[in-house]
Amino acid sequence: MTLLNLPEIQKKIDQLFTSENFRKEPIELYNPIDYTLKLGGKRIRPAMLLAACQMFGGDIERAYNAAIGIEVVHNFTLLHDDLMDRSPLRRGLPTVYTKWDENTAILSGDAMLILAYQYLTKDPHDNIHAIINTFNDMACEVMKGQQYDLNFEHRSDVSAEEYLDMIHLKTAALFIGALRIGGLIAHANAQDLDYLETFGHHLGLAFQIQDDMLDTFGDEAKFGKKPGQDIRDNKKTILLITALKQCTQSQQQELASWLQFSPADSDEKVHAVREIYNQLDIPRQMNQLIAHHYQMAQTALRQIEIAQSNKASMQQLMEQLLHRNK
Amino acid sequence: MTLLNLPEIQKKIDQLFTSENFRKEPIELYNPIDYTLKLGGKRIRPAMLLAACQMFGGDIERAYNAAIGIEVVHNFTLLHDDLMDRSPLRRGLPTVYTKWDENTAILSGDAMLILAYQYLTKDPHDNIHAIINTFNDMACEVMKGQQYDLNFEHRSDVSAEEYLDMIHLKTAALFIGALRIGGLIAHANAQDLDYLETFGHHLGLAFQIQDDMLDTFGDEAKFGKKPGQDIRDNKKTILLITALKQCTQSQQQELASWLQFSPADSDEKVHAVREIYNQLDIPRQMNQLIAHHYQMAQTALRQIEIAQSNKASMQQLMEQLLHRNK
Repeated sequence: MTLLNLPEIQKKIDQLFTSENFRKEPIELYNPIDYTLKLGGKRIRPAMLLAACQMFGGDIERAYNAAIGIEVVHNFTLLHDDLMDRSPLRRGLPTVYTKWDENTAILSGDAMLILAYQYLTKDPHDNIHAIINTFNDMACEVMKGQQYDLNFEHRSDVSAEEYLDMIHLKTAALFIGALRIGGLIAHANAQDLDYLETFGHHLGLAFQIQDDMLDTFGDEAKFGKKPGQDIRDNKKTILLITALKQCTQSQQQELASWLQFSPADSDEKVHAVREIYNQLDIPRQMNQLIAHHYQMAQTALRQIEIAQSNKASMQQLMEQLLHRNK
Repeated sequence: MTLLNLPEIQKKIDQLFTSENFRKEPIELYNPIDYTLKLGGKRIRPAMLLAACQMFGGDIERAYNAAIGIEVVHNFTLLHDDLMDRSPLRRGLPTVYTKWDENTAILSGDAMLILAYQYLTKDPHDNIHAIINTFNDMACEVMKGQQYDLNFEHRSDVSAEEYLDMIHLKTAALFIGALRIGGLIAHANAQDLDYLETFGHHLGLAFQIQDDMLDTFGDEAKFGKKPGQDIRDNKKTILLITALKQCTQSQQQELASWLQFSPADSDEKVHAVREIYNQLDIPRQMNQLIAHHYQMAQTALRQIEIAQSNKASMQQLMEQLLHRNK
């Protein structure tokens, strides 16, 4: 079997989403789903699933539906998160609850979660039970992660460990789920699935810390949205948590006063908080943390007992994520 | 194997829900789930699932988790419906979005849907794939039914056929899903599963038309809520649809003026619309329709090719529903 490289896998995923018809009856329920799924995005999770399947010698054509399912469940979480966070834009376009209304966002999101299960269970895999259990546990962890994230809004004493536990659930769990399901479809053994899990854990943490960095220091032209949203929202990111732990008393007073400040135009606040982060050398520390988790991911990938050539597309995917600026 | 009668099945279900621990971490996510699932209710759907399993000689102990799953998915739909409909009370107690808030209702509801899948797939049934596909299709139909119900709010030309199609999706689909899954766990054959489906379809329609009747003409002391809510909300029930089709021109004018009337205290509206329904003999017509669907359900149950004695608890369940006043 010829192995696909990453661009070929990504092209295939784009084709899947372009050709798939999500517009069913009733249109009031399915048009928002179609809108959400055709908005694009990086489609990282289905690429992980297919690369994992291929790595272990699986037939990736038998993993297409599961790959769609994993992207659908990811987009379900975004759709409901955008409603809960009252985010007006996603990928530069209106979110479902702003383009339609709240009830549409609730019900279409619910239908998307069910749709994800429908794609996941479309093909007759002999180990479908293990695949579904993996998917269930993953989806449950994402919900828990979102809840902890909401809880953190009302707390001022969130530790770095708690933050990392939260993003393990909210972000890494979906990576791990995608990887394990891809591995299961190819009948990878339990040991290799555990290595995949470690790989996904560290990749997920690195990815989310990068996200926090891009939100604060990203290039607006490349990142596609105005940076500083987390600062404006007082989000308990790893940047803020680290800064609060390391700051001097005067910096702490300054940060505290900015945290109580929420005017309509808060560019001043974004600049000021960013300045404190720079004084504390937060960007360098964060880049070290990201590099650490990439290294751990790399080690886990190496430990998987198959030919290195089989891992090429997964290696490419990791490097693409490492060098992303959006 | 000794067959359980309906009270024994219902007692078992109550025990399951009393002993099951739904309060996990994070409590902000799971307390509303526990609250919802311990509120009680008639637990009709798990009883259907267990009665169906037992009917075909299945071991009902192997169906307990699926029975919990079907009640969890039902309560998930209620939780999100109450939010979408802005209903303050459910079973006489505050709904989740009023007791907590909207975001809690959204996220806890999402977690409940996933929890339903977790219960459904807990046991290692050899036909788990068919069980999950049945559950997926059922859940998808319920979402479609809810969407059509929402669509009908903005339409004045809903036909009786459209209404019955809607309640087939919104109400009967869950009955059918519960019955088929119970049958699948007991390895019932395809022909008998189809009879079960016909049984569930008619039982669901009869049940929902009864619900509409109870909402309008029910006894407050027994029904547990003030009757007339559908009238106050201008809901397109089968009562209103039938009345609009059969009314005289003067009755039509009167109905139309009441439909535009929505004061805080609308007891007058409830009495007036109920009076028109009585003039048009709507209650008798509805009771005939209910009796018709019970008869069709009875016929389907009879056609199932197993000993009549095996059907005793299902027969009891049907009769309990037929004579309900709440």
